[in-house]
Amino acid sequence: MSGIQPKLQPKGLSGTIVTETKICSINRTNGITYRGYNLKDLAATSSFEEVAFLLIYGELPNQKELNNYLNQLASYRKLEQPLKEILERIPKNADPMDVLNIACSFYSTIEPESSHNNEYKIANRLIGSFSSILLYWYHWVNSKKRINTVTHPNDSISKHFLKLLKLKDNVYDEFVRALDVSLILYAEHGLSTSTFTARVTASTLTDMYSCVSSAIGALKGPLHGGANERVIEMLKTFKSPEDANDQIMEMIKNKKTIMGFGHRVYNSESNGDPRNLIIKEWSKRISKFDQKEGGNPLLFSISERVEDIMLSQKQLHPNLDFYTASTYDQIGIPLNLFTPLFALARVSGWSAHIIEQRSLNSLIRPTSRYLGTLKPFPPINERVLQHNYNFTSKL
Amino acid sequence: MSGIQPKLQPKGLSGTIVTETKICSINRTNGITYRGYNLKDLAATSSFEEVAFLLIYGELPNQKELNNYLNQLASYRKLEQPLKEILERIPKNADPMDVLNIACSFYSTIEPESSHNNEYKIANRLIGSFSSILLYWYHWVNSKKRINTVTHPNDSISKHFLKLLKLKDNVYDEFVRALDVSLILYAEHGLSTSTFTARVTASTLTDMYSCVSSAIGALKGPLHGGANERVIEMLKTFKSPEDANDQIMEMIKNKKTIMGFGHRVYNSESNGDPRNLIIKEWSKRISKFDQKEGGNPLLFSISERVEDIMLSQKQLHPNLDFYTASTYDQIGIPLNLFTPLFALARVSGWSAHIIEQRSLNSLIRPTSRYLGTLKPFPPINERVLQHNYNFTSKL
Repeated sequence: MSGIQPKLQPKGLSGTIVTETKICSINRTNGITYRGYNLKDLAATSSFEEVAFLLIYGELPNQKELNNYLNQLASYRKLEQPLKEILERIPKNADPMDVLNIACSFYSTIEPESSHNNEYKIANRLIGSFSSILLYWYHWVNSKKRINTVTHPNDSISKHFLKLLKLKDNVYDEFVRALDVSLILYAEHGLSTSTFTARVTASTLTDMYSCVSSAIGALKGPLHGGANERVIEMLKTFKSPEDANDQIMEMIKNKKTIMGFGHRVYNSESNGDPRNLIIKEWSKRISKFDQKEGGNPLLFSISERVEDIMLSQKQLHPNLDFYTASTYDQIGIPLNLFTPLFALARVSGWSAHIIEQRSLNSLIRPTSRYLGTLKPFPPINERVLQHNYNFTSKL
Repeated sequence: MSGIQPKLQPKGLSGTIVTETKICSINRTNGITYRGYNLKDLAATSSFEEVAFLLIYGELPNQKELNNYLNQLASYRKLEQPLKEILERIPKNADPMDVLNIACSFYSTIEPESSHNNEYKIANRLIGSFSSILLYWYHWVNSKKRINTVTHPNDSISKHFLKLLKLKDNVYDEFVRALDVSLILYAEHGLSTSTFTARVTASTLTDMYSCVSSAIGALKGPLHGGANERVIEMLKTFKSPEDANDQIMEMIKNKKTIMGFGHRVYNSESNGDPRNLIIKEWSKRISKFDQKEGGNPLLFSISERVEDIMLSQKQLHPNLDFYTASTYDQIGIPLNLFTPLFALARVSGWSAHIIEQRSLNSLIRPTSRYLGTLKPFPPINERVLQHNYNFTSKL
């Protein structure tokens, strides 16, 4: 062994290159690409299903492949009876991310991964069923309705989601497309924490469900997917753009965190998250709808004002979560389903990474530097009450 | 920015130091220490509950603290009615690791983390309830019995587990202690993959249940916790030490993987996993029991022969999984509960790491090197059937 001591990596592994990948690139010149295609083109032209196919299979589908894929996804909308019975036992105040996690682990018990039920099928099963799972549970706990989760097979995932949410057959095409675009933007973003978690988990050669379940748990956190829910909570406290101005200035003065701004991979020298401009356009477009239908021009103008202040005062750009929050709110999506929609979309990116990890697998098992001291073992009757905190409060 | 290009870390982050820690040290001179105490002393003298307390709270308990702790853990043995109803809906051929994962996520919905239900309480709740969860489900699917999961509060976790498993009040003290020692040895082992997963997940500031659930999913994999089940499957195929000798030599010749040997952190120059000698003694001790009670001297002698061959032929030492397999088998633990017991024990180590990660938190978000090319976006009607694999088999 050489005498060179390996060095401690930067906190949070910031800048540490842990793997090579062919899935996603993020850089200043080309923006974000999925499998080599610019995300701007995908968000302008493709559907979420097309993007999910691209991420999972590595290539864009032709029309025949896409049609097959849409049929396949739609076939997963019917929920199994025991799953419905389990969903009915999850309380109303539960975090729907836990609902997804329970359902994901339950699928592992009724349709375990096997040579016949491979990683691709499981990815599609989860993408295809998450809307049904969320909304079956949602209507059950809110109004004791057992909804039919099957809609027309030609419905996209976004249309299926909005139809089930609103329990009506007619939903605005613009709302469907706004949701669809948000799913495309959320589908993949390199080694986000949840994606890295999925890859670490995958490296033990555990099954797909376990990997996705790990990722859902990570995405739930407020420093990750949980952020989009916090944005709308904050925006709703502002009465007007002027009020937003005053309150944000006060928050900056008091060094409070303002949600929806900044991102580790986009520093202040860059033009910020390239996804922001895309979703902002959709938030603006929806804000012009009749207010009875959800359009909320005040919310949009408040959002724009917050964006302006943060740029001028803190040189921070909004991230994807910021205008997704007002988009989702205007199209009538309940706050607690924001992060689950992020999860639904990101299953496609997670799956791509899990499959890539398996293809070049080596158990991910890093090491740590020990900072403690070595101590002789004291028999129990020689241990004094030396602890300076009260264990019982933690029992 | 400097012109220095950060380098790609070794595959599997082997040797990459990702954090500092005060929980566990592993080295050639001192062996393994938990919070500075040598694992040999803990395995000789302490109970698993004492070790769990040490890992989670950072200090060894005195007698009064330990008594309080034992009472607290015992209070979690009664299962909630909706949880039992959920367990009854999980099929018989399910992997019990998924059973634990579903229960863990379900607890998050009925007892979410809060200032009143903090990380310490949740760690204890999971450690205290996992035996009940596993065995309620086990007896239900195997014999449609709804068992009472509450036993005497003075019973240790190991005694509780064996009493519920065998549905009788008298279990051998040696069996209880063998299980107890195995739990001590499994409780913590630095940045194992599941523990690293738990820390990555924790870094988004998600809740404890999500972190533990991530770790369970990683532990399930055959390159991690799943290994102990594979060992006994292999050992059972050998009819005698001589047969083991012949078959292992054949497996070595054919470059087959022999489960239960080698470990990334113990290279061939070291004396191997220090936990091996401890659990081997227990496997030997149990093998001397009457065969009607479980003692299996043939299994032990086959195991020893395999150990000898692997050392002489491959310079590989057994890891902890190897003699744990014969220990568990002799005390009558069904194969599919081996890894769940590892999980029950490791919840203590995972919890210590999650709490430590939170105390010095920075979002764990590494980066990757992009290997793909950038491509122009083709409209869907210009995409030819160029794919060299059949998507439909993966749909």
